[in-house]
Amino acid sequence: MKTRKFDVIVLGSGVAGGHVATRCHKAGLSVALVESHGFGGTCPLHGCEPKKVMADAAETVERFNNASGSGPVGSAKLDWVELMRFKRTFTDDLPDKIQKHYEKLGIHTFTAAGIFAGPNTIVSGNSRLEASHICIATGSTPRELHIPGSSLLSSSNDFLAMPTLPERIAFIGGGFIAFEMAHIAAAAGAHVTIVHRSQRFLKKFDADLVKRLAEHLEKMGVKFYQNCPPHSIEKDGSALVLKAGEDGSQSFAADAIFNAAGRIPNLADLDLPTGNIDTHKGGVAVNACMQSLSNPSVFAAGDVIAETMPLTPVASVEAEVVAKNIIEGPIHEISKDVTPFALFTYPPLAGVGMLEEEAHEQGLGFDVIHGDSAGWSEYQRIGQQCAGFKLLVDKETRQLLGAHVLGDAAEETINLFALAMRKKVDVDELRSMLWAYPSFGYAIKYMFR
Amino acid sequence: MKTRKFDVIVLGSGVAGGHVATRCHKAGLSVALVESHGFGGTCPLHGCEPKKVMADAAETVERFNNASGSGPVGSAKLDWVELMRFKRTFTDDLPDKIQKHYEKLGIHTFTAAGIFAGPNTIVSGNSRLEASHICIATGSTPRELHIPGSSLLSSSNDFLAMPTLPERIAFIGGGFIAFEMAHIAAAAGAHVTIVHRSQRFLKKFDADLVKRLAEHLEKMGVKFYQNCPPHSIEKDGSALVLKAGEDGSQSFAADAIFNAAGRIPNLADLDLPTGNIDTHKGGVAVNACMQSLSNPSVFAAGDVIAETMPLTPVASVEAEVVAKNIIEGPIHEISKDVTPFALFTYPPLAGVGMLEEEAHEQGLGFDVIHGDSAGWSEYQRIGQQCAGFKLLVDKETRQLLGAHVLGDAAEETINLFALAMRKKVDVDELRSMLWAYPSFGYAIKYMFR
Repeated sequence: MKTRKFDVIVLGSGVAGGHVATRCHKAGLSVALVESHGFGGTCPLHGCEPKKVMADAAETVERFNNASGSGPVGSAKLDWVELMRFKRTFTDDLPDKIQKHYEKLGIHTFTAAGIFAGPNTIVSGNSRLEASHICIATGSTPRELHIPGSSLLSSSNDFLAMPTLPERIAFIGGGFIAFEMAHIAAAAGAHVTIVHRSQRFLKKFDADLVKRLAEHLEKMGVKFYQNCPPHSIEKDGSALVLKAGEDGSQSFAADAIFNAAGRIPNLADLDLPTGNIDTHKGGVAVNACMQSLSNPSVFAAGDVIAETMPLTPVASVEAEVVAKNIIEGPIHEISKDVTPFALFTYPPLAGVGMLEEEAHEQGLGFDVIHGDSAGWSEYQRIGQQCAGFKLLVDKETRQLLGAHVLGDAAEETINLFALAMRKKVDVDELRSMLWAYPSFGYAIKYMFR
Repeated sequence: MKTRKFDVIVLGSGVAGGHVATRCHKAGLSVALVESHGFGGTCPLHGCEPKKVMADAAETVERFNNASGSGPVGSAKLDWVELMRFKRTFTDDLPDKIQKHYEKLGIHTFTAAGIFAGPNTIVSGNSRLEASHICIATGSTPRELHIPGSSLLSSSNDFLAMPTLPERIAFIGGGFIAFEMAHIAAAAGAHVTIVHRSQRFLKKFDADLVKRLAEHLEKMGVKFYQNCPPHSIEKDGSALVLKAGEDGSQSFAADAIFNAAGRIPNLADLDLPTGNIDTHKGGVAVNACMQSLSNPSVFAAGDVIAETMPLTPVASVEAEVVAKNIIEGPIHEISKDVTPFALFTYPPLAGVGMLEEEAHEQGLGFDVIHGDSAGWSEYQRIGQQCAGFKLLVDKETRQLLGAHVLGDAAEETINLFALAMRKKVDVDELRSMLWAYPSFGYAIKYMFR
């Protein structure tokens, strides 16, 4: 086995790993980039990007159908086969293009799985790689369900690559993957069921707005089952049957069942003990410099850390800190800034800052401003009947503790709230701001009526 | 003639006048509200609101057609008759509802035109109204064209109320009314021509992005003629012919020709000299307190001031200052804050702050960051081929002097830039901000690549 020496080895070529590799290379360091699952990682290949391609197509069709009676005439449906063909134009040639891009830069790429062979050593196929710094950025992987018949389950990757649309689809899980994919499948005409272990769907989003959204999805034909843990999966001819509930007494027949029960850090095959790397809650245990607590040569960034928010922009920020610390020494600490997040159903749901229950738990004094906004002309013009908002305002500072928006362009409006929170704008200033009229940003004013 | 005494007389019930009347009434003052053209004013009856209803319908159809080959299948057209019927649901019962709303509050409404009969006196039909304060908020009116045959012209109000769509439509003017209406008419299938007096279209918007948008509208079939002042209009059977160019040698046949040559303060019928009210550039001349320079009893707000930006949010802010000054005495000065503005074609075009030529004229040191963004996946996902941006960054402070965005959701993105400018966020902070991913706000990061 050849041994090759580098300044930096990066495991994983997604948003986090790719950024660390590029930044370190630009700083003059020699970099090895190890990727065994397609260069680019989850976001562009099996995550946000292809999902948003599909969500946008669903939105286009739904927006057209919502506009019935308002001027647009004709007919609109979502064709799955065409959608998949279009999606592939965004994904299919990407791994090859990205790998070539790194190679052209002068970053050395390795495509066999990387495994620790010592604190500063990685083995990838026939290559033994040594470096003064190693960055673990292998992302996350679906949480396995340990129930009988789990081998019959499909994954979210499978969903994003399905050549045809099954008639009946069930999702196990009630988080953002289940909601986003259920919405796309329902918009394309599938009969969709979401079977969720506990009571609370979409735990990171405002509960009242989640309820409102679920009611809307029910009108699209999505069926929701709460307090219904998965029990087992059986084959029934060409179909599958999900048994659920504590005793497996509930039964859901489907043509495809997807495991959307969350994702966990992707570390199982790395042999972390050999690398002297401790874990915390299943992810790499790091300090504020994103440096391993047990092996100072090792850093981590992105979803491979259990406690991070599994969001593309957060992975970017973490990667930037790791890169700086590798280049300049471990002096830069991560700053957990105001981080808005969005669920891409139609309408979308977005949030930033605290949830109402979190603010209560912390015993904060705050006002809740909330309402249904489907009656605003912004939504009536486009026939949107599902819209709402909730703002949490600190009683003393009059600044936002949290903001939650459901409705068209929620992913844009939430950015305004995030910037306002970052700059400590109080609600009186927010209310008096001049915004483009009419826009969904302008409609922030109506929240204070 | 009865004489009635009030604390405040407000002329005009639009965004500005309605706000002044309501605020003064709430403060305990007796208020007379004079409106002879339908309660509500231009914005909700003949302006932003109905226009946006129509622009949204056009966008829905275009977005569907742009998505051809990406999943959505079927057909989409814009039906003018249905669009008009839908539009009327937003406008038709509004004047009556708004008048009743004011009456119910206890504001006295008068529906005959208000004319000054002295510095503190207004005559409206059979009523003689006297007050210690008068607010002029009569808005704007189309600039008349003094050319032969101008009586054959239609107005923008006529456009927004056309029961059927003419086959051939010509607009005289190259400002935002011409662009927005031309876009709607073209989306609904009309053959549209824009005939503009000078070289520069849409003077308040970035010239490069305007050029890009005009090229896009040309692909939709809109024909543009520059340096082509209107000369005369003739009837030709059931059609009209617009002669244009200095010598009238250019000829445009159309079934309807619209005067979109701008709007001027609506003051002609008020008899301002009797009210002892001076004008400036054709509008009410006011100080920083929005108070008449010649008659301290009189205030003005909204488009009736020639030098204001004719925007709904600006009218609101001015009205708030006038109301405070009437209630508390003339001590509050208007603050001209960062004001974003948007053109609702599809895609929309938006701006905030300076134009490139303005920054040059002022001799400022600044960098220009600009580009075509149609290749970004945000736009490719929805088949949008027309998108671009321009940022003007002060060399010293690294803050934005101006920002200009063309493309889907430009009216939302511009709000982010406006808030960033107001809070003096420099571009390095702007670049490092966390935004929801993917969103058009997030795509701000790509501008700095």
